[in-house]
This record gives sequence, C-alpha cells and structure tokens, in this order.
Amino acid sequence: MAATTGDPGLSKLQFAPFSSALDVGFWHELTQKKLNEYRLDEAPKDIKGYYYNGDSAGLPARLTLEFSAFDMSAPTPARCCPAVGTLYNTNTLESFKTADKKLLLEQAANEIWESIRSGAALENPVLLNKFLLLTFADLKKYHFYYWFCYPALCLPESLPLIRGPVGLDQRFSLKQIQALECAYDNLCQTEGVTALPYFLIKYDENTVLVSLLKCYSDFFQGQRTKITIGVYDPCNLAQYPGWPLRNFLVLAAHRWSSSFQSVEVLCFRDRTMQGARDVAHSIIFEVKLPEMAFSPDCPKAVGWEKNQKGGMGPRMVNLSECMDPKRLAESSVDLNLKLMCWRLVPTLDLDKVVSVKCLLLGAGTLGCNVARTLMGWGVRHITFVDNAKISYSNPVRQPLYEFEDCLGGGKPKALAAADRLQKIFPGVNTRGFNMSIPMPGHPVNFSSVTLEQARKDVEQLEQLIENHDVIFLLMDTRESRWLPAVIAASKRKLVINAALGFDTFVVMRHGLKKPKQQGAGDLCPNHPVASADLLGSSLFANIPGYKLGCYFCNDVVAPGDSTRDRTLDQQCTVSRPGLAMIAGALAVELMVSVLQHPEGGYAIASSSEDRMNEPPTSLGLVPHQVLDHYEREGFNFLAKVFNSSHSFLEDLTGLTLLHQETQAAEIWDMSDDETF
Amino acid sequence: MAATTGDPGLSKLQFAPFSSALDVGFWHELTQKKLNEYRLDEAPKDIKGYYYNGDSAGLPARLTLEFSAFDMSAPTPARCCPAVGTLYNTNTLESFKTADKKLLLEQAANEIWESIRSGAALENPVLLNKFLLLTFADLKKYHFYYWFCYPALCLPESLPLIRGPVGLDQRFSLKQIQALECAYDNLCQTEGVTALPYFLIKYDENTVLVSLLKCYSDFFQGQRTKITIGVYDPCNLAQYPGWPLRNFLVLAAHRWSSSFQSVEVLCFRDRTMQGARDVAHSIIFEVKLPEMAFSPDCPKAVGWEKNQKGGMGPRMVNLSECMDPKRLAESSVDLNLKLMCWRLVPTLDLDKVVSVKCLLLGAGTLGCNVARTLMGWGVRHITFVDNAKISYSNPVRQPLYEFEDCLGGGKPKALAAADRLQKIFPGVNTRGFNMSIPMPGHPVNFSSVTLEQARKDVEQLEQLIENHDVIFLLMDTRESRWLPAVIAASKRKLVINAALGFDTFVVMRHGLKKPKQQGAGDLCPNHPVASADLLGSSLFANIPGYKLGCYFCNDVVAPGDSTRDRTLDQQCTVSRPGLAMIAGALAVELMVSVLQHPEGGYAIASSSEDRMNEPPTSLGLVPHQVLDHYEREGFNFLAKVFNSSHSFLEDLTGLTLLHQETQAAEIWDMSDDETF
Repeated sequence: MAATTGDPGLSKLQFAPFSSALDVGFWHELTQKKLNEYRLDEAPKDIKGYYYNGDSAGLPARLTLEFSAFDMSAPTPARCCPAVGTLYNTNTLESFKTADKKLLLEQAANEIWESIRSGAALENPVLLNKFLLLTFADLKKYHFYYWFCYPALCLPESLPLIRGPVGLDQRFSLKQIQALECAYDNLCQTEGVTALPYFLIKYDENTVLVSLLKCYSDFFQGQRTKITIGVYDPCNLAQYPGWPLRNFLVLAAHRWSSSFQSVEVLCFRDRTMQGARDVAHSIIFEVKLPEMAFSPDCPKAVGWEKNQKGGMGPRMVNLSECMDPKRLAESSVDLNLKLMCWRLVPTLDLDKVVSVKCLLLGAGTLGCNVARTLMGWGVRHITFVDNAKISYSNPVRQPLYEFEDCLGGGKPKALAAADRLQKIFPGVNTRGFNMSIPMPGHPVNFSSVTLEQARKDVEQLEQLIENHDVIFLLMDTRESRWLPAVIAASKRKLVINAALGFDTFVVMRHGLKKPKQQGAGDLCPNHPVASADLLGSSLFANIPGYKLGCYFCNDVVAPGDSTRDRTLDQQCTVSRPGLAMIAGALAVELMVSVLQHPEGGYAIASSSEDRMNEPPTSLGLVPHQVLDHYEREGFNFLAKVFNSSHSFLEDLTGLTLLHQETQAAEIWDMSDDETF
Repeated sequence: MAATTGDPGLSKLQFAPFSSALDVGFWHELTQKKLNEYRLDEAPKDIKGYYYNGDSAGLPARLTLEFSAFDMSAPTPARCCPAVGTLYNTNTLESFKTADKKLLLEQAANEIWESIRSGAALENPVLLNKFLLLTFADLKKYHFYYWFCYPALCLPESLPLIRGPVGLDQRFSLKQIQALECAYDNLCQTEGVTALPYFLIKYDENTVLVSLLKCYSDFFQGQRTKITIGVYDPCNLAQYPGWPLRNFLVLAAHRWSSSFQSVEVLCFRDRTMQGARDVAHSIIFEVKLPEMAFSPDCPKAVGWEKNQKGGMGPRMVNLSECMDPKRLAESSVDLNLKLMCWRLVPTLDLDKVVSVKCLLLGAGTLGCNVARTLMGWGVRHITFVDNAKISYSNPVRQPLYEFEDCLGGGKPKALAAADRLQKIFPGVNTRGFNMSIPMPGHPVNFSSVTLEQARKDVEQLEQLIENHDVIFLLMDTRESRWLPAVIAASKRKLVINAALGFDTFVVMRHGLKKPKQQGAGDLCPNHPVASADLLGSSLFANIPGYKLGCYFCNDVVAPGDSTRDRTLDQQCTVSRPGLAMIAGALAVELMVSVLQHPEGGYAIASSSEDRMNEPPTSLGLVPHQVLDHYEREGFNFLAKVFNSSHSFLEDLTGLTLLHQETQAAEIWDMSDDETF
C-alpha cells in the first residue's frame, strides 16, 4: 500500500500497486529477440502488457506480459485493458545493476505529465498506463533479472476521503447497476476496444451515462461541484483502488480542479460469479480534488516494484528449473552459436552449418573427434560407418567411448558412437552403420566376405553418400578411402579427408567437379586438372574448387592392401595423442569454412605459394579413367578392383606406364652417364 | 600318433606327440618382452619349457611354457624335466604366416643331429629336448598366434617291437621297482637336477643301477646284445611312449647299434597315487636298434604341432576374453604409447610423461580437452579444480559431460569430470575439487565470499599446487590465472597456460625460475628477464627456460574483474568450436615436449625470429615485486589484491608509473608536432 501524505483530518486514500506478472512465454520471446534481433542493441523497445478487472478475490492486481508483449499490434485479450511499456534490456548484469532507475522513472513521469498537459491523454487514456521494464537476460543460465515500474505521478497533497469507499450496490440500485453495465458495454463496442481504462459517468435514479474523457466539456456541462469518473480497476480489495487511478486523479486535478471541488470515483470491477456477471462489488468513493490547474512542473513520481523480500530491488527468475531439459539443451547449444553472429561474425550463416548432413566414414580416433566438433557447431545430422568393435585401448583416445563399452568383446563402434551422441545431446539425429567398406586389394570373393555381401555394402554406401551432404573420410587405411572418394565424386558431394601420421597429419577437401549437366565431359571428372586447363593456367593462380585434387591425386601407387604387412607400431593409432583432436577439429572447421563460401564446395582455394604444389599433369589425369569406369560399369568394375592386386588399378590409370617410363628414363640416364 | 614306417612283420613302435601348453603367464610375459625389450627385433630368442612324467591318466603329454620361460636361469619346477627352445616372434601376422617352417625345422634337426654326432648330447641330454615356437602377438587385440614344434629326427627304418610294451610291474619285482626309484632319486640328487630326461639302466633280480649317458662305455661294459635305457616319459598311454624318446632312440642307434642289436626302453613314469609314489605303471618294451652308426647325414625330421582342428596349422588364443578387463584396459593403453618407442621415437622417456601429476585449473572446454589428451598420453594422475556446475550448453563442447549431468541444476564440473575419467579408464587416479580461486578485483570481504573462505581457498590451492608437477591454467578469465601463476612460480612448478579467443588462442609455458638455493635473489623471480640479463643478451638468442615470461608478462594492465561488464558474446565460450580441441591438445603436447627435455621446465625456447618478441625490460620486471610480496606477506598480501581495484597491483608493479610516462610522452609528442 502506498500512502499519500496530507491533511490528517480526513482518512486518506491509498492505492494497491501492481504486481508484475511476467509469463514464461515473455521470457522465451525475449530470449529469441535478444539472440536474433536485438543482439547487442540496448536501445529502449516498445512492449505491451495488459491487466484485468475481473479476478477472483485474493489475487493481486497484476500487470501481465506474455509472449505477445513484443508485438505492438497484437490484440489485447478480451475484457482486458492494455498498458504500453518500454523495455530496457541490458547487455550485462553490471549495466542492469547500474542503470539509472531514478532517471528512467523521471523520464516516464515527464511523458505522462506532458500527455496530461497537452491533452493527449484525454484523446488516448492508455498513455496514462505507462510502464517500464528493466531486464538482463542471462541466456547461458536461463536466469532473467528484471525490475518493473509503473510510474505514478504524485499529487501535491493528500487526498482526503469525503465519502466511502463502499460497494457499488450500496450506492446504486440494481437498475442503475444494469444501466451502467449496458452503457459501458455499448461504449466499448462503439469504440471497438476490449475495455475502457478511464471513463466519465453521469447518473440519476433511472439512467447511467458513460463517456470518453475527450468528451469531458460537453459531458460535464451543467455539473456543479462534483463529477464522477470511472476507472477500470484491477484491484480486488474492498477498501482500496488499484494503481491505475493515480495518474487519472492527477489528470482530473490538473484539468478539472478549477471547476470542481471533489470527484466521485467508481472503481469498475467486472467479474463473472457462478456464470453471472457481477459489477456490484465495484467500489465507489468521493475525494477532494487538489488544486493543480496551474502547476507547470511535473510532479514527483513513484513506481519501482518491490522485490519478493519486500525491499527495493530487482527480481530474478530461473527458468532453467521449469523448462523441459531437452528443449533447454537445444536452446543452450544454439545460444553459443548465435552469439557468434552478434559481433564477431555477423555474416555467419548458421543455417548452412546446422542443417548439413554429415556422413562419418570411420568412428575411431578421428571420427570421434570430428563428431564432437560437429556437435559443437550445432550440426544435428551425423551418421557413422565403421565395422570395428571398441577395444580396451580406444576410450582414452576416442572420446565417444568408455571402459564399459569394451567389455564382452566390445560394442560395434558405429552404433556406440551414435548412442553416445544421443547421451551428449538428445536433440541430435544420429545413426550408426556397422558395415565394411570394400577396398581395392582386399578380395571379396573368398574368406568370409562374399561377392554378394560386397555388392550390398557398395549399394548401402552409395545410398548413404546420396543421403548426406558432406562425407568425412576418417578411416585408418589408405585404400578404404578409395571407394567412397569415387562414389562421392560421382555424386558431387563435398568430401573432407583427414589422415594421421605419427606427428604429421593431412586435412583436406576433395575437389568438387562441376555438375554433370554443365558439360563436365570436357573436364577431368574425378578429379580436377585436365591437361588443357593446367597448361593454360599459372601454377601460382588460385585454384577453383572444381580443379582441386583428391587424396589419391598425388600418389604414384594405386591403393592396395596396406594392412597385410604392418607391424603394430606402423598402424595409424601410433600417433601423438593430441594429433587426432587437432586434425579432427581442423577437418570440421574446414567444412564450416567451405560451407560458408557462397560457392560451397566449388570455393576457390585461396592463393598461397606453399599450397600450390599442383599434381603434375600425368598424375592429375589418374582418377579420370576410374570415375568413367565406375559410372559406366558400376559394381562389376568395383569387384575387379577389390579382387585385383595393385596392377589392375595401375594399368587402368596409366600408372604402370608411368612407372615403366620412369624406369626407362633412369636406365637411359645411367648409360648416358657411362658414355661420358 | 605318428607312425614310423618299415618292417611289416613285427608291430611298430608309435609315439605320442607333445601338446604344447602355453600358459597365460607366458603370453603376458611375451607381451612385456615385445613391448619393452624386443620391440621390432625378430631375432630368435632362447626360451625354456618343461614337462612332467607324473600326470594323471587322461591328460595329454604337455610341454609347458610359463611366465618364467624367458629366464633361462629360472629353476625348473620340482620333478619336472626342462626343454630348451627357440622363440621366433614375428612383427606381423604376414611374416608369421609366411615363415619358412620347413627350414626352421631342418635347422633345429641339424643342431640335434650335430649334438648326437659330436657327443654333446651325451654330456647334456637336454640338447635332445629342443623345441621351436613361432609366434605373432597381436597386442592390440590380445590375440596370440602360435605354432609349436618339437623336432623329432626320424629313424631310417621302422622300429619293430621285439617285446612289449608292458607295465613295469609285469617285468620288475617290487624289490626291483623300489631299487629303481632309489637309484634314480640318488642320481638326480648327485647331479643336482629335478629330473633325468634320459638315463642308462642295468639290473638283475636284486639290484637296479642307473647312470648318466656320458658314462655309457663304462656302464655298458660287459653287456651283450641288449642294453636298457630309461626315458623320463610325459606320456600316460599304456601302449605308447611319449615324443622325447624319439631323439634318444636316434642317439642310441647312431651310438650303439654297432655294438648292440636291440634296446630295452623303460618309459619312466613317476606319479603319486593316493599319497603314495607309483612308478609301477611305467612301461617297458624292447625294440630292434636300426643300423645308423655310419650315416653322416641328418635324418629328416618331423614335429610341427597340429592345431585344434587336427590339421597342420597355427593356433590362436584370444586372451582378451579371460583377462581382468581393467587390467586389460591398462595394458592396452600402455601399448599404444610403448609402440611409439619402437621405431618412431626410440628415445622417448614415457615414464616422465606417465608419472607426471597434473593439476587442471578449470574443467570447462579447455579442461575437458586437456584431460582427454593427458589420458591419451597415459598420464595417470589428473586433478580438477572448478567451481561451476554443468549447464545445458556444455556437453556438446566439453567432452567429459553428458546431457544427464545437466539435470537438476547441473553436477559440479570438477567432480563430474573426475567421475568421467574413471568411466573412461578405471586405472586413472583422479579427483575433483569444487572450489573457487580467489581473484584480484573480486573482493573477498563481502557478499557470500568471506575472508575466511578465501584464506581456506588459498591454502587449498597452495597445497594442490605443491602436490602436483604440472599446473594447467584453463580458466575462462584472465584474473583467475593470477593467483595460481604466482603460487606455482613460487613453488617452481611447470605452468602450462591456454586461453581461447574467438578464432585465436594462446598456448604457452610459463618460465620456471631457478631454484631458490641457487642465488635466485639476483634473478627476476616471477618471471624471467632481469634487466641486466636482458641487456647483455641478443634479442634473437635462444631464451633459457628460467628467462621465459608468464601470461601476465606482456600485459600493461593488471588483472582485475573482467567478468563484471561483459556481454554474453564477449564471454570466452563464444569461440570457434574446434579451437578448444586444438588448444587443449597443443597444451598437452607442449607439456610432453618440455618433460622430454633433459632440463624439463628449464628447457631453452628454441630460436625462431617470430617467437622472439621479448617483453620490454620495464614489463619484464613487473611480476618480480608480486612474487616478493607474496613470499614475504602471504595471504595478507593476497587479500589486498583480491579486494583492490586495478590500481593496487598496477601501483605495486610500476604499471601506473608506466602509464603516466606513456601518457606524458604522448602529450609531448603532440606539442612537438605542433611546433613544426
């Protein structure tokens, strides 16, 4: 209860303040606005709330803000009264704390005072219902700090009660009450509003008239010492009016105190009790109108809301406790990403990253680290392919597995990796395929791998590559990269390849050849540098994406079975432990950078002398024939490759010829030497 | 049963082959030898097995290899007979498969034959008990491939049985049996051996004499057409002798067939039945001695063991199934590390890495990645300090947490991180401390942080730093690095610092000042470049570790509260997601490199022009005064720092003066310009 000061002779009028009622929807919408629209903008924003005069007894007078608060053209709920506000959302808790609340209140009071003096408030009484909301949204913790203010101008003296307050039914007959209801409803309808915050009343025993403030001169004509005004009152208390009356009384005093000595106030309360309308519990009283007609200065104002402890201080809501945890996780993950767009990389197109579908071939050291980095980037669609089981040495280096996954022979990696992603972030769309990738030099027509199985594996792999946007090659042998590289090239999918040495690694994107319909026949299909192109271009020019090579472009040996004769320490896991994290992270960052380029996989490789070791022409042509054969013969061609020794692919691609020529050249050189 | 060929008139002697019995302890020891000693060495190794002649009926004749097989001086178990062998452990499954088993057998047979011809086998009959073991240890899977061979020289013709075999009790009286036992035991005792593999026997109705092979000429003097020999027989079968007899018969034929036509063989079997000794079930028989006295060439040999399917092929044991999973995890983790030492970095001192105790200050994005890389390097002692709880945005970027850890307000990070390490690798020794690190500019004498709590936190931190070898600074503010940097400098602990920007990061080691007793008073304590030192040294010389700076050496602003006024996107987690993995991995790799240096934290920073931006002298001196004050005043000094604004530290360190001088210089410059 805020008491006014003044004449001790009569009992003084006191007002019930508003309780701010900030809905979860409001905070959710504020979060979205902050993340996507306001970002670092701290400028004041218009918002809109409402209050109701039909609450059951016991409820505080609430000013409610919902998700719709940010839409100034959103309709006000039925039978509710709008209030217009200003949102001051700060970027930091510190600015929230140090905001000059006195100044903000004074500014708002001045606006209200000006609207009273200018008559604008008569035309549009909602201007009296102004509120302020100071907020800081800690979106990392879903903690919202806020301080609500409904500025109320103070009258220069106390308001002595001349009569009342009493219930309306003690002053009005049933007939008068019904006439009031009818007149109020008609005016609302005429004006097309849900409620009238402030109105004028004239009544006698038979009639009750209601009018708009702007019509006061006509309406009050003939009145003597007293006028009656109505206020849409959110308060429930029998002895006190609610806060909205305060600024209206200041208006009345300023406008009408020169003509009238007192004002009768109807606090209009309009509830439904047991299915019937009830305005009889409205209260009515009469107060002396203080003399304010000629005061030019804005009166002092009050209105900052007390906090839950009853002191002057901000409130905080912790929404993380009441949100659905999975939904909370999703928005939290989005948060970090969206923050990047605020200031650091405003042009970042997050959708391109978040929506990309990634196929990870290999769920080992590299695969786990790539998957984790993808999650960090908000990628929601991650598929694993691997045929290995988790062994005891894996968990310390493969960050999706734990000791328990190794028991009983070990879970299949691809499935366990997908399970773990779900545990890390339930919003991810992930699957694992426990399957082998057929490889050159790993025959498919004997031992346990049948030709039929290989055919199925190839089809499965083709399907998987078709259904994803980016293919990561993260296996532990060179030859297992061959088939997916060929299929992905044929399907024009972006390929990111990573491979580890002991203290070296390679992270690269494969060139993306031009779409088939664009006369690709003239270009080297998989991959890039057709001789004519190469000869015509400077070695130090930037290379367009469609001319970039693949993992095999620089090799002079076709892929074969590299696992047959390797000692334990020659296997890829013998690598400095930090390397896989670095390579995995870089692979994803490379993908993100490529995706951000307007041409995507066709992005030009930026110029740098040490990156310009283009493959020589004869090698640049190597994979051409491979892709041709794959597209013409399909699995029959692949089966030959799987079952053959090196020589098949080397014959096909011309490497055999190259080797022979090199050898011949060496021999010639030697004899040449001897003749000197 | 291996049959000999020859005369169909008489029934032929057949022999029961050995079953190899390779104990788990053998494979474990082989693993250790391979990892730590043999590495890539494929040279044949001497090993030692044994067999027993007292098994219960039904057991196969086993040649047993235990963990002690690699120690040629290890004692042979009581009452067992030793066998000497050669281990061929290959580096790859491929070399295992392609090993020339025929050649290996021939070589071994030749050695046996030579020992027979030279008489060495008479002196040392164990030379007849030779075996080969070809192995490939797949230490990644704990699959052990092996092929056992007990080479048996073949006699040129079949061995017709003249008499027997019958049980000894059908030929010897009880008295004779007891005399045999007694004579055999006495000879063992005289010779100091656990068993006699081969021996000579002479007997009549009352006495039984036993002698060594080397005494044959004296012992057999006076014998006519027949001699009696004894063989320690691992076989249980009533009709067949075991495999060891074969080479002995060849020796007998070569040595004695010119003098004797037949040989009586006692297959000496010596078991304990119901508490009583029983040799009566030994078998005895007589065979014709083939004429071999003058054959110079080594007879052909047999002996490769059949596999479980009864075919000629290797066997495999999968020990991962029967090992204690936690122990298996430990050795698997060690494996990858030890493999590095084989060829790639033979000088790598793994113990220095594995035994290091790491304190991670911060268990967020960086802390999780550093911990994972440390696990990859086999570090067993990892302690976390953090005061935060896991929030919903963490798991996708902080690879020790999952969605479930965020529920109910979130688990404390430090504790959850330690729990997760245990789940990844149960062998790790890890703890988490949920505590705050007092910071400059974060006052400790009001709000919830009391001075008393700060004092406890400082003491706790001092204790933790004291108890660890390497301190990682992985927090998300600049000022939280201040106190641990000071304490660690005072305690001469290696500090590795990592910090993230949006797309930049720093990973550095702090300089380690010289030990206090070495006249450190002359040097800049925390840290490095005393003016005299700096002036005397070239800017482009290598910098010794004790002259390197710390995180604060390059700053011209003292650490204060940097979190007070930061917007959401200015907080450190707004960072390219791949960055923390890269920085975390590099921080650990840096630590490992420093630890490998003979001077550890005092290692010189290698020369490189772009790394040589030494801090200017005036800044180089900055932390000097800080360390002095800390060591003199302890917590009282710290409390001043925590409660003061920037100016306290800046005044103390001379930064205030520097700022003033800079400003003065700038003003002078401006007026200088104007005069022109």
